[in-house]
Amino acid sequence: MSVQKIAKLAGVSVATVSRVLNDSPSVKAVNKEKVLAAIKALNYQPNLLARQLRTSRTGMILAMVSNIANPFCAAVVKGIEREAEKNGYRILLCNTESDLERSRSCLQLLSGKMVDGVITMDAISELPELQNIIGDAPWVQCAEYDPDSSVSSVSIDDISATEFVIDQLVKTGKKRIALINHDLSYQYAQHRELGYLDGLKRHGLAYCEIIYADELDYLSGKEAVLSLLKNAQRPDAILAISDVLAAGVINGLNELNVAIPEDIAVVGFDGIDISQITTPSLSTIQQPCKEIGEMAFSLLLQQIDSTSSVKRVHHLLPWTFIKRQSS
Amino acid sequence: MSVQKIAKLAGVSVATVSRVLNDSPSVKAVNKEKVLAAIKALNYQPNLLARQLRTSRTGMILAMVSNIANPFCAAVVKGIEREAEKNGYRILLCNTESDLERSRSCLQLLSGKMVDGVITMDAISELPELQNIIGDAPWVQCAEYDPDSSVSSVSIDDISATEFVIDQLVKTGKKRIALINHDLSYQYAQHRELGYLDGLKRHGLAYCEIIYADELDYLSGKEAVLSLLKNAQRPDAILAISDVLAAGVINGLNELNVAIPEDIAVVGFDGIDISQITTPSLSTIQQPCKEIGEMAFSLLLQQIDSTSSVKRVHHLLPWTFIKRQSS
Repeated sequence: MSVQKIAKLAGVSVATVSRVLNDSPSVKAVNKEKVLAAIKALNYQPNLLARQLRTSRTGMILAMVSNIANPFCAAVVKGIEREAEKNGYRILLCNTESDLERSRSCLQLLSGKMVDGVITMDAISELPELQNIIGDAPWVQCAEYDPDSSVSSVSIDDISATEFVIDQLVKTGKKRIALINHDLSYQYAQHRELGYLDGLKRHGLAYCEIIYADELDYLSGKEAVLSLLKNAQRPDAILAISDVLAAGVINGLNELNVAIPEDIAVVGFDGIDISQITTPSLSTIQQPCKEIGEMAFSLLLQQIDSTSSVKRVHHLLPWTFIKRQSS
Repeated sequence: MSVQKIAKLAGVSVATVSRVLNDSPSVKAVNKEKVLAAIKALNYQPNLLARQLRTSRTGMILAMVSNIANPFCAAVVKGIEREAEKNGYRILLCNTESDLERSRSCLQLLSGKMVDGVITMDAISELPELQNIIGDAPWVQCAEYDPDSSVSSVSIDDISATEFVIDQLVKTGKKRIALINHDLSYQYAQHRELGYLDGLKRHGLAYCEIIYADELDYLSGKEAVLSLLKNAQRPDAILAISDVLAAGVINGLNELNVAIPEDIAVVGFDGIDISQITTPSLSTIQQPCKEIGEMAFSLLLQQIDSTSSVKRVHHLLPWTFIKRQSS
């Protein structure tokens, strides 16, 4: 531990270092000077050291990301990092892809007291198993939630966001709206599908077509749209539940010389950078990615800092529909 | 540790668990059954447990990623994961963005014996400081290297790859080739600039224009090309040192109705998925991302498994030029 290194270099006891860090008046001036010089030489931050000493915290948390290749996840991680570093915390990441064995290995950091808490982005289907492993340790679930769970969460209301997109498409005269979805073991995928079906029903639309992409990437989106267009009746609008899928859809339609949005409108979900640079630019539901990460860390810190048990909460942050050229 | 949990649940000693895991004949059948039942109930993998017992390894390594928002980094991580899991290892990630303080915090896992080794993707400028912290522990540097360093590395030859692109552009009649580069604290950025300058010189080209993007993302690429086109003499080709920058360049040129590749050709670098779905599709240098990650892990495992010191090596893997519509 850093305090021991400082004590060694300063030639004083660990207790003396601790007293200096906690600004105790009982330290000789000469020893205080030695300790401060050692802290400087070793390039440590005295405030963080003092905090760790007082609290026996590690100053690290574990963020278990569902898919680091998904730009949405990377944007959420940036938010977690930003809020964590403001509070003197560092982040360790695990790319779980909602694989329980991966999660289990990384969670050894929690039982080994190497991290003070954990933020997960795992599929709702994994929550019961994770609950067994994580128990009562500080824990926030992020961008995916179970309203019936006792685990705090931060997310958006995926059902109402998707219903809103359907309303917007219907307003522009679209009547045959298809959905490109992904892995239904995630609650967000289930909820977006629910919002889609509710939207169709409310507008009395008969056409209903759902395709499931294998991966959350461009090429899977392209593959999905090519297979969709083989059906007898073509859609006049496509909602993809992620911007990377939607970018692949736009590419596939461009190659087939389908006019976007005249023949087929396209809407994505997430509001990541790619939505701004497709040709045409992509209409999308903008998720507050960084804010989701920031709030997840804030909720976690409350649990870490509290001496008694903290009431678990489910935060739903606001989303925005951004209309661009594709719809 | 897991073995202790198993012992507790099975009601036997840790030594007995160890003997079962190592298939020792000296265990009573009834105890063996109890241990196997406990392993099953706790959902552990007996093979990994046995290996960890034999070797006193943790079965975890730390991968310090330079930027998790960069799809190239995510692709390299997939390669590391693939090879690691084949060998019973799990990965912890740290998004360092070549920030030494972040790296220092995460490397506590190494001194705390929570990981057996470390793969870094940090900028060459950080290598001396990292060397101070990591010392003789198993360590491989990835996608960025210093030929004079004693740290093993896996990368491609960035100079010859960039020279090759210049040759290809000259062959199609291009004479005013501009470069969009990024952070020169990275060796790869220095080397690609060197390859560009060498290429211009070999062909006796007078036009030379280099712009530095603030970030490795689409919008910075778009911003860079818009500023480049304000110059009195326009380029007739642009090489961007990353595909995400190049995708932003294509978007900027599309908005200005510049014909690609007739008026201005565009070439990227990395060979990530985005290069296939831009309009027009992007010519690029394909890096063997997954293979870089796989080989980095293999080299690291050699160091972990060896009882004596292992000779450090610098591997350069082959790249490919993929010609698409943009050049």
